[in-house]
Amino acid sequence: MNWYKTNLEISTHGKGLQDITSIVRAQLRDWGAREGMCFLFLQHTSASLVLSENWDPTARADLETFMERLVPEQDSWYTHDLEGPDDATSHIRSMLTDTNLTIPVDDGDLSLGTWQGIYIFEHRSRPHHRRVLMRVLSME
Amino acid sequence: MNWYKTNLEISTHGKGLQDITSIVRAQLRDWGAREGMCFLFLQHTSASLVLSENWDPTARADLETFMERLVPEQDSWYTHDLEGPDDATSHIRSMLTDTNLTIPVDDGDLSLGTWQGIYIFEHRSRPHHRRVLMRVLSME
Amino acid sequence: MNWYKTNLEISTHGKGLQDITSIVRAQLRDWGAREGMCFLFLQHTSASLVLSENWDPTARADLETFMERLVPEQDSWYTHDLEGPDDATSHIRSMLTDTNLTIPVDDGDLSLGTWQGIYIFEHRSRPHHRRVLMRVLSME
Repeated sequence: MNWYKTNLEISTHGKGLQDITSIVRAQLRDWGAREGMCFLFLQHTSASLVLSENWDPTARADLETFMERLVPEQDSWYTHDLEGPDDATSHIRSMLTDTNLTIPVDDGDLSLGTWQGIYIFEHRSRPHHRRVLMRVLSME
Repeated sequence: MNWYKTNLEISTHGKGLQDITSIVRAQLRDWGAREGMCFLFLQHTSASLVLSENWDPTARADLETFMERLVPEQDSWYTHDLEGPDDATSHIRSMLTDTNLTIPVDDGDLSLGTWQGIYIFEHRSRPHHRRVLMRVLSME
Repeated sequence: MNWYKTNLEISTHGKGLQDITSIVRAQLRDWGAREGMCFLFLQHTSASLVLSENWDPTARADLETFMERLVPEQDSWYTHDLEGPDDATSHIRSMLTDTNLTIPVDDGDLSLGTWQGIYIFEHRSRPHHRRVLMRVLSME
């Protein structure tokens, strides 16, 4: 059994879904882990880790639009606005999605579905540096 | 330490919550794993894996109704509709729920609460074949 | 490799977010696990486990208010109301958030972000006893 770990540093471009699948895949191949589990953990409460459709960009656009409509920044009832109108909304959007993912590894690769990609969903308007802890437990 | 793996193939009947607890339990008992962790991973972005109340069917009916109301197919702003009015909504509903579950195993069984069941939440109108990756790490 | 397990019994004060980070941290230090993964699993379908901002109480107040607005108890369409107006809503709120968390352990501590805390989100009006299964797999 083997244990691999690194902390991925990702620069986001501000609000929206950003594909990090290739970064995670490359790290896994670099380690040469063949079979086991991959654990991803985002160390933030104003962004998310999401598995989403990776083929048609309109799917992602709709996810982003939905979040803007479900948790709108224009709402006047938020009390947590020290850092701006995207402050409370970011934490709410993070709570409604995921911040940790647990993905099987088979044959040296992530066992994602054909159309599944791993995304950071940045909820803050401005670009941020985000840290994703990546851990792999392999059975070899 | 032992490692068990299989891919469960589940046929859904179209939209709604479908109990898969007994399938997962049967597989676990078949392996004879006594103690550790069970990892479930759904390889799709238009369905979910959900832990839900397993006693009163009205609880599940309300979850289904809520999703229809929160992410209605009649909304006209979706752009991702290549596969029909349940296309964008399916991805949104998937993002708002879970696609991976990590459940402790004790005494040879899943350590679910008394009223907890494991469900596939199908978001597409038509029946689909869904794949759930099941992995168990046992401590024996 | 080592395996640690306990079931945390938490008394909630009724609806709202309740910080359990120090309880989880204390247990981890007690065991002396240095590096690996910590798995938390809530055995209930009417409460949640949530990672949330731990610095400004207004952030949590906004999360609670948002849930009241998104899944209001006053709605008349719920059919699952055997245990009161917070019955169906509790299951829906649970489905929209998390009930299991997987957190890396490094240097003998949970690898949470600076502002991340672990919370039980109680969705029932009255206080409840809640059970959180805590498992740690350490690499030493």
